[in-house]
Amino acid sequence: MSAELRPVSAASVTSWDHEADVVIAGYGVAGATAAVEAARAGADVLVLERAGAWGGAAALAGGFIYLGGGTPLQTACGFSDSIDNMAAFLNTAMGPGADTERIADYCAGSVAHFEWLVDCGVPFKPEFFGEPGWEPLGDQGLMYSGGEDAYPFNTIAEPAPRGHVPKMQNKKQGQASAGFMLMKPLVQTATGLGVQSVYDVRVQALIVESDGRVVGITARQYGTDIAIKARSGVVLATGSFAYNESMMARFTPRIAGRPISAVEHHDGQGIRMAQALGADLAHTDATEVAFLVDPQQLVRGILVNARGQRYVAEDTYPGRAGQHTLYYQEDKAFLIIDEQGQDGALASQTPKLILRKPKWVCETVAELEAEMGLPFGSLQDTVARYNEGAERGEDPLLHKKARWLRPLGSPIGAIDLRHATGGFSLGGLRTSLSAEVLHVSGEPIPGLYAAGRCTAGLAAWGYASGISLGDGSFYGRRAGRSAARG
Amino acid sequence: MSAELRPVSAASVTSWDHEADVVIAGYGVAGATAAVEAARAGADVLVLERAGAWGGAAALAGGFIYLGGGTPLQTACGFSDSIDNMAAFLNTAMGPGADTERIADYCAGSVAHFEWLVDCGVPFKPEFFGEPGWEPLGDQGLMYSGGEDAYPFNTIAEPAPRGHVPKMQNKKQGQASAGFMLMKPLVQTATGLGVQSVYDVRVQALIVESDGRVVGITARQYGTDIAIKARSGVVLATGSFAYNESMMARFTPRIAGRPISAVEHHDGQGIRMAQALGADLAHTDATEVAFLVDPQQLVRGILVNARGQRYVAEDTYPGRAGQHTLYYQEDKAFLIIDEQGQDGALASQTPKLILRKPKWVCETVAELEAEMGLPFGSLQDTVARYNEGAERGEDPLLHKKARWLRPLGSPIGAIDLRHATGGFSLGGLRTSLSAEVLHVSGEPIPGLYAAGRCTAGLAAWGYASGISLGDGSFYGRRAGRSAARG
Repeated sequence: MSAELRPVSAASVTSWDHEADVVIAGYGVAGATAAVEAARAGADVLVLERAGAWGGAAALAGGFIYLGGGTPLQTACGFSDSIDNMAAFLNTAMGPGADTERIADYCAGSVAHFEWLVDCGVPFKPEFFGEPGWEPLGDQGLMYSGGEDAYPFNTIAEPAPRGHVPKMQNKKQGQASAGFMLMKPLVQTATGLGVQSVYDVRVQALIVESDGRVVGITARQYGTDIAIKARSGVVLATGSFAYNESMMARFTPRIAGRPISAVEHHDGQGIRMAQALGADLAHTDATEVAFLVDPQQLVRGILVNARGQRYVAEDTYPGRAGQHTLYYQEDKAFLIIDEQGQDGALASQTPKLILRKPKWVCETVAELEAEMGLPFGSLQDTVARYNEGAERGEDPLLHKKARWLRPLGSPIGAIDLRHATGGFSLGGLRTSLSAEVLHVSGEPIPGLYAAGRCTAGLAAWGYASGISLGDGSFYGRRAGRSAARG
Repeated sequence: MSAELRPVSAASVTSWDHEADVVIAGYGVAGATAAVEAARAGADVLVLERAGAWGGAAALAGGFIYLGGGTPLQTACGFSDSIDNMAAFLNTAMGPGADTERIADYCAGSVAHFEWLVDCGVPFKPEFFGEPGWEPLGDQGLMYSGGEDAYPFNTIAEPAPRGHVPKMQNKKQGQASAGFMLMKPLVQTATGLGVQSVYDVRVQALIVESDGRVVGITARQYGTDIAIKARSGVVLATGSFAYNESMMARFTPRIAGRPISAVEHHDGQGIRMAQALGADLAHTDATEVAFLVDPQQLVRGILVNARGQRYVAEDTYPGRAGQHTLYYQEDKAFLIIDEQGQDGALASQTPKLILRKPKWVCETVAELEAEMGLPFGSLQDTVARYNEGAERGEDPLLHKKARWLRPLGSPIGAIDLRHATGGFSLGGLRTSLSAEVLHVSGEPIPGLYAAGRCTAGLAAWGYASGISLGDGSFYGRRAGRSAARG
């Protein structure tokens, strides 16, 4: 079975089961956008999807698309932004080691990309959602999704919300996710352009000419081996490796075994097929981190590590709080919250189901510290300093916004957030800005293109919600156009 | 030039410039040990070295070889150890994500490996060096080199020193490094066994048969392309990618541009040549971290981050303090030390040249905190709690050993340790325990073997001094034997 990854010589293929100009592996957001652009460029397009239907992880996602630089939606909601301002944020937030060239490219094309999505029929409601949360509570179209308005980013770039969310129908009935509302019009657009698709197909290996050019894919469908010819180019859009245990153990061991926001088809197959041809990798240690706590609670408490120390502003992007917990605090955190804070969270608009209860509740901080087994004095010092600043409306340590500063009182409790993270891999194939897959030599592999989470995109280490649907759709389009050109 | 990485078809090679049973790329510790074992297995061996002489990074290194489980040297110095005890330490210290199978293999063979080195003529003086330091001050043969006797490891396994250092001649005159005293007898042993070597040869690409078997290497020597035939096997022992800017930026961006303890020949060429054949990678984010501060100072002060908080026991392995600084504290640290501590460091046996001076000196902690620009109260709380514990001979926060606990007095200063780290990459090719290079399919690539820092060895993330010479020599031997068998 593993040998199926090895490149297959075109000369050994005796008959082709399917044939198209552009063959795309994976019908998530990268595959769908690639299909639309390849078809518009005049190519005959075939999409191979492993599942029984289009959608991928995108259709199940919260639906944020990270866009900015002054999109019509930002403007309609009263926010100003610029390409440089957006790049300044991303260069810091996506690092350390952010790919500034890719970020500049993405930011420069962001407004046009928004318009392209709208043109494909993706709906956005011009309304801003300003409360803490993982996603808007209603069908609002815009939200802060990367901590742009929190420290330290609010000192690096002018805060602007860039999480663009497709408008959901029947949100209250839970009948659709915003990701579905992104995918549905994209697939309808592709279908309208004549894009063909085949489902329940597991891609196995790339087919190459003797000169190294990729000219097709082998796959299995219902137990049968098939060969698909790509006259112009192959696009890999097969998603992350979050469900490949070996890859996770070797590249991102801290989060191995805890995939979140991924689909089990994300087994790294596309990455490995290309590696077998000498394709290079990048940022394989980067991960999105989901932090399993409600942001409505997070902002009302103080987050401390196993030494009782605060380490990240509680009003930052919750995924960033999760990253700092997983990577900097060895996945050990506690949220210290008093009765008033917990009541405030309970009274928030957040669905009550996802609020957590404190594991420990005490009358005093000293008692709480002892019950939790924290080093003597550590939590007492932390709370005393926090309260002292909060009285003045300041947080000298972490610069949490004044809106959320209030001295913690009694009773006081702690929510156990040890090992409360999960996520998916962000690294993968190294590609050019034209979505060509790069060989370890640095040169493109002829005929092979890739986009989405099987590639390293905007994120080198940091992350913001909407980056994956953002770079997946942006470079998916590039991949489609490049593959159509051949 | 970049195209030179691509595998070359054996059929296209019209004449061979050199030929041997086993061809080894790189004459550092992995190459030398591979050469000895391949020759002892009866193979005709040729080593290709890029530099003008054998040695690699090993010959310039401090010379620690991480060995244990009850070596004669440990016993002679009065320490007991066991295979399980050593594995318990490494499984924690080399993680998160440590390869327990490889660690078990390495620990089980550790005593025999020590005896093998001694048999090759590597000298060890049975004397223990127990002071803080990056390496022994004299020619002592044994030292703690991974924080085994410090928290948290002293609660996980019975502390035993495992840093085995070859005895230097003329150490005081600085005429040799301990790494040289490892390499010299290994190369002499190899030479005595008839191993041939060629210098000033830059390997370029692997030569493969049509069935995928590796049968040679192409290289450049003095501007001429040459081809070297390997009748039995090729061993890659080309070192890390610390000097490959592109790889460092994509895999370990936090330390990119600051190589330490590496040689500039460590450009990742061996890794990339194998990747071009579909070889897989592992732990590409792992790095050794040198922390540019004298351990004699480190133990006498308290290490705080940019929030004035302590985060790692100051008497742990200094490389671990460096890792926690670089990766957990965004490379920002300050060492708070009082006059008595600084005087103690100055009075230590350490060469005075490498001791650092405080950047700020004040009468009180409050003044120091303000001068350093730390958040108000942060350092005052930290020092007060530390002093309170030190009075009792305890460090509840980080469990620094009582030997080093003393309340900090006045005057008090801070040594600036921001961006005071550097290091080399620890990840690389994925190999079997037999040192076969593994294809992304998980199967060995026929004819191709690797060891040393072009492979992922014992370290998944954490590190201890001596791990690289340890796994490089241990799996170098395996690579030599495997390649001789073919």
